[in-house]
Amino acid sequence: MSVMELDIKISKTPNSRISEFNQENIQFGKQYSDHMLVAHYEDGAWGTPEIIPFANLSLSPATTFMHYGQAIFEGVKAYKDANGKARIFRPQDNWKRMNKSAHRMAMPDVPEELFVEGMRKLIEIDEAWVPTAAGSSLYIRPFMIATDEFVGVRPATKFTFLIITSPAAAYYSKPVSIFVHDEYVRAFPGGIGFTKAAGNYGASMYPDQQIKKMGYDQILWTDGFEHKYVQEIGTMNVFFVIDGKVITPDLNSGTILAGVTRDSVITILKERGIIVEERPISIDELEEAYKNGKLTEAFGTGTAASVAPIGKLTFHTDEMQLRPVEEWEIVNWVKTTLDDIRYGRVADTHGWILPV
Amino acid sequence: MSVMELDIKISKTPNSRISEFNQENIQFGKQYSDHMLVAHYEDGAWGTPEIIPFANLSLSPATTFMHYGQAIFEGVKAYKDANGKARIFRPQDNWKRMNKSAHRMAMPDVPEELFVEGMRKLIEIDEAWVPTAAGSSLYIRPFMIATDEFVGVRPATKFTFLIITSPAAAYYSKPVSIFVHDEYVRAFPGGIGFTKAAGNYGASMYPDQQIKKMGYDQILWTDGFEHKYVQEIGTMNVFFVIDGKVITPDLNSGTILAGVTRDSVITILKERGIIVEERPISIDELEEAYKNGKLTEAFGTGTAASVAPIGKLTFHTDEMQLRPVEEWEIVNWVKTTLDDIRYGRVADTHGWILPV
Repeated sequence: MSVMELDIKISKTPNSRISEFNQENIQFGKQYSDHMLVAHYEDGAWGTPEIIPFANLSLSPATTFMHYGQAIFEGVKAYKDANGKARIFRPQDNWKRMNKSAHRMAMPDVPEELFVEGMRKLIEIDEAWVPTAAGSSLYIRPFMIATDEFVGVRPATKFTFLIITSPAAAYYSKPVSIFVHDEYVRAFPGGIGFTKAAGNYGASMYPDQQIKKMGYDQILWTDGFEHKYVQEIGTMNVFFVIDGKVITPDLNSGTILAGVTRDSVITILKERGIIVEERPISIDELEEAYKNGKLTEAFGTGTAASVAPIGKLTFHTDEMQLRPVEEWEIVNWVKTTLDDIRYGRVADTHGWILPV
Repeated sequence: MSVMELDIKISKTPNSRISEFNQENIQFGKQYSDHMLVAHYEDGAWGTPEIIPFANLSLSPATTFMHYGQAIFEGVKAYKDANGKARIFRPQDNWKRMNKSAHRMAMPDVPEELFVEGMRKLIEIDEAWVPTAAGSSLYIRPFMIATDEFVGVRPATKFTFLIITSPAAAYYSKPVSIFVHDEYVRAFPGGIGFTKAAGNYGASMYPDQQIKKMGYDQILWTDGFEHKYVQEIGTMNVFFVIDGKVITPDLNSGTILAGVTRDSVITILKERGIIVEERPISIDELEEAYKNGKLTEAFGTGTAASVAPIGKLTFHTDEMQLRPVEEWEIVNWVKTTLDDIRYGRVADTHGWILPV
């Protein structure tokens, strides 16, 4: 990927907090890098973006998005190679998806140079915040909020786009246990399930609390019509290895997020000659495959989690306990292959890496 | 309703903006009263609420609700009687619904005294902002946002509850034209359609933009399964008068907001001996009734809109144009009866009024 032109104003902090950043004890989502990017949209156009010290926003309590949820986000990561040079993974794909979300949520497109080059510049300035420990990365959170000061229900006319970043250690340290939900519904056709709209996540908090009390890590959502087909995990897409083939739900219903990690995994699996099927997968099929010993691996994929093995999958009282992850073939190979690309241990043959 | 005890801190503004408030030119949602109520929830408990001058909030760009939409609101109105005394309409019912939303969105209950007495106290202080013109009112917006400074997806632990208010003139000046939508879906069973969660509204902005371009005011949503049954208007519940009976969609699917105005309208219609049916209503039934001349009135109800006559209802290319509103019986009677209660022209026999 090539570097783009971007007119940007930069005001660096005189009080860097980098000395407070402890690589041995990374607290994802709690510590933020020194700077953030901010750009305002008004009268049909984006103003000059600024990189400024990370600081609170001053917002009217009547700001539209607080009331009506016109808010979208993305998740991207930067990794350091052996030479300590930061590299961003597939930012252009997140930019494309951000604009798909923006369109569905009646928000303006974010220009490519603002999203991609703005992000690159921000990471360049805060490169010291990209951690170097194994499995670690800098989590990058671009987001857009509707900022009219108006409490009537109508699409906003003013918007703010921001990028903030937070150092992240490896996400899940052990295989996750998953509860397959057939009471609550995450998304439905004609809705916003395919977007990264804020509202999709808030709606999942209560069911999430319930299954955590039961000892599970995450929910695997089912379709809203019949609760028969599995969909996604809310923060991750889901893959199953059945009879040597890799199967993941297709995106046709508009209820599943088109994960960038999902796409990366499908790409590298196919390159290795493994059959990947994107199609509806029913709970029945999973239970049948499990009983016959053909369900050999299961995993989630996402920017935050990367590739997360699923140790246990429960539907009602039916527990599918997979064999120890150490014995799995595909998930470990996929995770290593993906990490090799991200951390620059192999050549980037896909054009996925934007060097900072 | 009786006045409750509430421990509250009050800091009045030394710079009232009341002289800028022009009763002749009320701009709903653009001008806010002098004060607002703020209360913080942390470590499992609400702190002492404060009434302070209306001002911007200082929020970290990593505040949970900006990313994950854990945000809910309510809409209430205060009216002035002939003596210029303000009265709040059914605040206790909005309080109950707020907590239904809070429960589904994994947010803490708002105590009754905080919501109701806090609101009463706020309106008492800003009573000069309650307009006196016919059809006018003070719109009251209680809302709650999740305020953890954390970008990981998980239910928040800190929350802020606020009440802001804005003077409002009559909402719709002429009958609204409605487009019956069968492509996009507002809500689905197992979702959050019955709550006033911010995310429900953001998801409707794009479809709303589309139908406005086509010359319509509002969308009448249909069920997500078959797009066969009508649901609600997003900012209003919907009622039809067919063959002298009043019919409104029932709330059983969990996809329709239990409107306080809806309940008020049903109550006063039943008291007058009019048959009200809460049940599924199909588009087919509406079209059939229209063809036979039996669909005589249609209207929406909501706190903002009060009772809004529907002049035209379009499904695909099928236009149902109702006769002039002046000839309607039920909607005009309902609106007048409701206004008489709100503005204190008749006795409050239902315990709906909280005097300020």
